[in-house]
Amino acid sequence: MLRRSFVSIIAAGALAALSLAAAAQAQTDPLPSWNEGAAKQAIVDFVAAVTAEGGSDYVAPDDRIATFDNDGTLWSEQPIYVQLAFALDRVKAMAPDHPEWKDKEPFKSVLAGDMKGVAASGKKGVAEIIAATHAGMTTEDFEKIVLDWITTAKNPETGMLSKAMIYQPMLEVIDYLKANDFDVFIVSGGGIEFMRPWTDTTYGIAPPNVVGSSIKMKYEVTDKGPVIMRLGELNFIDDGPGKPVGIQSHIGKRPIAAFGNSDGDFQMLEWTTTGPAKTLGMIVHHDDAAREFAYDRDSHVGKLDKAMDAAPKAGWHLISMKDDWKQVFPDE
Amino acid sequence: MLRRSFVSIIAAGALAALSLAAAAQAQTDPLPSWNEGAAKQAIVDFVAAVTAEGGSDYVAPDDRIATFDNDGTLWSEQPIYVQLAFALDRVKAMAPDHPEWKDKEPFKSVLAGDMKGVAASGKKGVAEIIAATHAGMTTEDFEKIVLDWITTAKNPETGMLSKAMIYQPMLEVIDYLKANDFDVFIVSGGGIEFMRPWTDTTYGIAPPNVVGSSIKMKYEVTDKGPVIMRLGELNFIDDGPGKPVGIQSHIGKRPIAAFGNSDGDFQMLEWTTTGPAKTLGMIVHHDDAAREFAYDRDSHVGKLDKAMDAAPKAGWHLISMKDDWKQVFPDE
Repeated sequence: MLRRSFVSIIAAGALAALSLAAAAQAQTDPLPSWNEGAAKQAIVDFVAAVTAEGGSDYVAPDDRIATFDNDGTLWSEQPIYVQLAFALDRVKAMAPDHPEWKDKEPFKSVLAGDMKGVAASGKKGVAEIIAATHAGMTTEDFEKIVLDWITTAKNPETGMLSKAMIYQPMLEVIDYLKANDFDVFIVSGGGIEFMRPWTDTTYGIAPPNVVGSSIKMKYEVTDKGPVIMRLGELNFIDDGPGKPVGIQSHIGKRPIAAFGNSDGDFQMLEWTTTGPAKTLGMIVHHDDAAREFAYDRDSHVGKLDKAMDAAPKAGWHLISMKDDWKQVFPDE
Repeated sequence: MLRRSFVSIIAAGALAALSLAAAAQAQTDPLPSWNEGAAKQAIVDFVAAVTAEGGSDYVAPDDRIATFDNDGTLWSEQPIYVQLAFALDRVKAMAPDHPEWKDKEPFKSVLAGDMKGVAASGKKGVAEIIAATHAGMTTEDFEKIVLDWITTAKNPETGMLSKAMIYQPMLEVIDYLKANDFDVFIVSGGGIEFMRPWTDTTYGIAPPNVVGSSIKMKYEVTDKGPVIMRLGELNFIDDGPGKPVGIQSHIGKRPIAAFGNSDGDFQMLEWTTTGPAKTLGMIVHHDDAAREFAYDRDSHVGKLDKAMDAAPKAGWHLISMKDDWKQVFPDE
């Protein structure tokens, strides 16, 4: 009896310690960079509802799919998309090997820093720039080129590293969802192979969980062994109505949570939030000119118009960068 | 002191119990349906090598990607591919709504059970059958059709349920790799949306981890809400040189282990086993006419010729179903 009572005391003590630890953990704010408010509450309430076993809104872990747009939702997209800056930089870096570009549009305008001239070259011009800078090399070589570039690339307006202009509050949402057994994906209009080299270290989202636009590829066996060549032909545009298709193609499940910031995310939000389960749709609204950029309906990049109009009726929550976020970038 | 000694005794006892449990677990054979031999040893040695922290062959968990072909590697593909049986059954089920099929090839031959006639219709005929049976409905409707069908579909030669003709030893390899922090994918020439409805319950491989051939899809908003329509146009063939491309597109990483059974897996094996890490390439050799089927170089389905010739030099291990497997199907 003496021995049993000691065991009981020790066991009771251990249990008490465990309970205290659990309580402390539960009280730790999973979203410390968010101000208290409707947006933060919507996230916390949604996660509580779909993870409450036995609750009417419970969703099994396998079906907890969350999708995030990248440009403007996870990192800054102003004054130009980071991938466009990459393409322009590549044209400049590659120019010595292409003397003919001096007299050939759209390269002539790129080299002259004439963005209006680039814009005037239209879709055809952009396609030529993409083909020249994103194709004609192996997937491994392209990965190295992207990694080298992103390590030092700076935002032309802020002078900050592009990969430092990621949103701390969104990193917290990603971690919070993952901690609650969500499978978290990027679903971006950007190039899938442009994102994959750095999304894992930057956001904690690994290559298999990245969905994006793509060019065609071809398997080839060379003198140096097998390679996958990147071809100068568009394969898939993961934007607008392409996003639900990209989601179905890559994930094969309908998300229950989607985060975007522009009209290019409209259909992803619509497809997600009209599903049969409890769902969450959120839009990052860039209304913070002081700490980031302020733009919406009239922006040439990340235009938010139709989706903002649809938000109230669709039940999509707007996230005000100005009011909902204590902090924008991790290094502030 | 009395109290401390009791704690010590209890702690020592608990530790001893834990150690015994760990030892017992370590000694449990992860591949009980495999006979001792070179094939089993190759799997066990490979897993031990890439998971040994500090070892020269160590691979971080994030880079432990394993890919499995499906037809003939995870389940039986004789006398015809299961998906072809599905397509033929669908033509029969849909025939009452298509009276014109009675006089129109390749449907006429399908309805008459004339497989030579179907074969004579060539690629164009097969494309017409696929378009008629796999397209023109939403992804959700197609999923239901597949699930309904696979629940009762039987192998025409054995009379067993098709989904019961999966290979128990391969299920053990999948579980063994997953237990060692591998991310396991199916990479099949079969239709991605034909597999996804049942691969999770059958193999423990969820929809996001299924790579396959696909038709184009389109997002549409209907009276009943948004849907993704399946279109009668081919998108991607995930076979032969398409497999490394499908792997790059979906996974974005080079596998370190690949399992196949036919020449359609040649490039996947080649791409995997010429990578920089320690790798494993294995080929299921169908040499067991008594328990399954025996076929290789001359088979119309799952032809294994070029890959078998290349195996010794490439270091690919042949798995003899007859000699290496104690048991073939789970229900034996």
